[in-house]
This record gives sequence, structure tokens and C-alpha cells, in this order.
Amino acid sequence: MGIWFTEKQTENFGITAKINRTYVSEQTDFQKLDMVETAEWGNMLLLDDMVMTTEKDEFVYHEMVAHIPLFTHPNPKHVLVVGGGDGGVIREVLKHKSVEKAVLVDIDGKVIEYSKQYLPSIAGKLEDPRVEVKVGDGFMHIAESENAYDVIMVDSTEPVGPAVNLFTKGFYAGISKALKEDGIFVAQSDNPWFKADLIRQVQQDVKEIFPITKLYLANIPTYPSGLWAFTLGSKKYHPLEVSEERFAEIDTKYYTKEIHFASFVLPKFVQDLTK
Amino acid sequence: MGIWFTEKQTENFGITAKINRTYVSEQTDFQKLDMVETAEWGNMLLLDDMVMTTEKDEFVYHEMVAHIPLFTHPNPKHVLVVGGGDGGVIREVLKHKSVEKAVLVDIDGKVIEYSKQYLPSIAGKLEDPRVEVKVGDGFMHIAESENAYDVIMVDSTEPVGPAVNLFTKGFYAGISKALKEDGIFVAQSDNPWFKADLIRQVQQDVKEIFPITKLYLANIPTYPSGLWAFTLGSKKYHPLEVSEERFAEIDTKYYTKEIHFASFVLPKFVQDLTK
Repeated sequence: MGIWFTEKQTENFGITAKINRTYVSEQTDFQKLDMVETAEWGNMLLLDDMVMTTEKDEFVYHEMVAHIPLFTHPNPKHVLVVGGGDGGVIREVLKHKSVEKAVLVDIDGKVIEYSKQYLPSIAGKLEDPRVEVKVGDGFMHIAESENAYDVIMVDSTEPVGPAVNLFTKGFYAGISKALKEDGIFVAQSDNPWFKADLIRQVQQDVKEIFPITKLYLANIPTYPSGLWAFTLGSKKYHPLEVSEERFAEIDTKYYTKEIHFASFVLPKFVQDLTK
Repeated sequence: MGIWFTEKQTENFGITAKINRTYVSEQTDFQKLDMVETAEWGNMLLLDDMVMTTEKDEFVYHEMVAHIPLFTHPNPKHVLVVGGGDGGVIREVLKHKSVEKAVLVDIDGKVIEYSKQYLPSIAGKLEDPRVEVKVGDGFMHIAESENAYDVIMVDSTEPVGPAVNLFTKGFYAGISKALKEDGIFVAQSDNPWFKADLIRQVQQDVKEIFPITKLYLANIPTYPSGLWAFTLGSKKYHPLEVSEERFAEIDTKYYTKEIHFASFVLPKFVQDLTK
């Protein structure tokens, strides 16, 4: 059998993947970081023993975090990514020609460093001149920003460890302040099968601050349940009212303009979480 | 840790679930059958060590196999389910008042017997007077039927073991003959992440026989990759041209009339498999 990684996605259920080799296994200042080569998914980044991204299925998460808000906004110029040190969201953001500046703030410089080394197809655009990479606290960066961004994407870990502050009402209020008056934000919101209460709570909290609050879904096979949720909060633009002309041809593997709309169509049990 | 079941969904990747107790573990005339109680998913039926259904997430598969073709057809009266001995598809079929008769043909009577015993919420409608249960070879039943059914659903295992004949062009031709002149069929078609070639092949084969051939998707967390594909072949009615008035109120947890349409919107890499 060899060496297998097992992530317990709940107390009683998990995924398991064969590991060919381990490149890095260390405790950073913030979390346990493992970079491994898996037989099924290519290179894989683990933080605190949870799958963060893999070479084979990363495109789903990164495309769906980036393109939904960026096509909802008519002319996004200034973009902030909180977390996302692997660089995958930034790579997708840069596909939008309107974007003049994309700031990435990840608390853990080691994630950035090892992603550049072992996930070059994901992190390869972090050196782009339009990108500013900051190693620091995303919560603080948000608190210090005002009327600064068109789109903010929260590409965090689960609400444990360093990301715990990123799932609070205070954080959403800070995001609102950091956004321009017609700004949009998106945050990953875990999955509706195992984390129904979290999704319900985030929906309630974001609705108190953003007039347009929507949940959308994508299939990510290495994430718990294979069904991942994203919460979008918008001050002005509605993600389902994007005009046909707004969409531009970009190179994607998951996102299409039809998926843009279909991803907001929720199975009944998920829809019930948003009420 | 206790006892854990692990299904290798590919050579190098799998899921693992804690088992509280094992009710049945036997070799039937056709396959290995295990009925277990899991801590995460309730009771679970395994055939040849693959998850067939669980009490907690079964509704997705059963609703999506049944309601898409049954609402696409304007007036389905006679329905055939090939496989599906757990009774879940039958339960959903019976929610359609137009259905006068639903025939279930499963090759393995043990699946039916143990499902009635350990999965009553799934198998509970197999005794309904509108249902005829046959223990026998679905391939033969199809071969012997002509102009008999409005809708046929193939709820089979993977194309290994007893189900291998159910993934052949000859089988699809038989289904066409067994259907009425405006009939529709649906077959489960595995997943686009690990079985891209299978999906491509089934699409090609079905297209040669049915003028309307479409692929649709649903999220099933205990199935490989969490993203399950279904192939629909139709002689006359298009699943995307169902009128608003056709939909009736039925009690579901996944399917909605909006999901009906959205499930045909494919991520780009899946869309590419259907060309």
C-alpha cells in the first residue's frame, strides 16, 4: 500500500490519498504545513492536515472564487485577496484586463514560499507587476483599508487556527468599509453537508451588512463532501443580473458564463440554509 | 479509532467511514453485499466494496435519476427501473401521479431483501400496488420488451460484475426498442474526474441511437469525486424545453424545477466530454 494521507473531514468520515513523496513537513509560525506529491492529484498543499489545494483540481476553487465577483463587477480595477498564498486566485484575477492592481495578504510567508517552489502552475503569477504580495494579517489589512477595493476575495482556511477572525461579523463590516461604494466580496464558506450551521450563520451575518447576499456552489473533489460553498456580498451589482456583453473570453476549465448563473441554483436542502 | 470502511475510488484515492456495526456481510450469487451502520451516513449498502447508497445522502441520486426524465415526459404512465433494488428510485417515481405502473428488475434478490430490512426509508415503497418487483436480468427484460415503457431508468452498479452488459451499445438499442415512440431513458454514468473516457463513450453510443442525448450532474458526497453524471436519451421530448406548467409540487430535498435546468449546465471540462 505504501504511505497514505487521510484527512478526517468529520469525526467519522474522510478521504485518503496515496503519497509518492513528501517535500516539506514543518510547523510554521501559524500552522502545520505539508507539501506532498500524491499519486492521484499531483502535488498537494496541506495546512493543519487539511487539503488546501492540489495541482489536478485547484482550477475549480480558484476560478470560482475569482470570476464570479470579477464578472459581476462592471470594471474591477483594485482587487484584494486575503489568504490565498498559493497564488491560484491571483492567477485567475490577472486574466481580467481591467485589473490594475491585485494585493495578496497572507499571514504565512511559508505558504507563499513553498507554493512558488512546488506548485509553480498555481503560484506562477505572484511575480506579475500588477501583483503586490504582503505577508501579514489580513484582518488588520482590512481594518486599515477604506474605500480601497472593487473586489475582495477571502481565500482562507477553515474557521480554526489563523483564520478564526475571518468568520466574524466584525470582519464583514471591515470588508464593507474597505470596499468602494459599489464593491463586492466573496468568501469561501465550507460545505452544506457537514457545516450547515456555519453557512446559515455566515449568510445571516453578511445579510446584515450587504444588501445583496448570495450563496453559490462548485464541485471540488478533494474538499469535504465534494460540494463547496461561497458567500458573495455586494453593495450594488447583482451577480444574476450580469449582461451578456460583460463576459469576456477567458481561458478556464470550470467557469463558463452559463456556470456563472447555474452555480447560484441551489439544491433544496442548501437553499433552505440561506433563508 | 474502531472499524473503518475504506473504498478505493481509484487506485490512489478513496473515502473512509467509521462503521458502528455490520448487519450483513455475504457473497450473494452475483456480488459481495455488505449492509453496515456508519457513524456519518446512517445505514449504508455496499456492493463489491463500493458505496451504493446511504440513508443520509441517498435522496440526491434517487431524486435526480427519477424526476429529470419524469418531468421531461409530459405524461409518464409506464416506468421501468433496471437495477435499483434498494427501492429509492421507485419511491421517487411514485411521487408522480401519472405513473400507473412501475416495474423494477434487479438481478440480485438479496439487495431487495436486505434493503427492505435495513433501509426502510429507502425501500419502503416497494410494496406499493403500482409497483411490480422482478428478480431477474435487466438486460434480458429489456431485450424482451417492445414499445412498453414511457421512461426507463438504469440504476446500475459500475460497469464491472453483473452490470457490465448495461454499458453497451446493444443495451441502448434494446432500451430504444423497449421504449414507446416518445420514450426517455436515463442511466447513471459515473463521474467526470476519474471516468472521463466512460462518459465520452456512453455519450457517443447513446447519440447514435437517441436524437436527444444530454448529460447532467448532481453532487453525491459518498460517490467518487462527489460529482455524479447521468446520461439522458430521449426520442422526442427535450429536457430543457419543459414548460413551467409541467412541474408539479413534489416533496424533495435536492431536486427543484430550477435544479432541473441547472443540472444540465456543465463545467467546461465536463462539457468537453460531451462533444
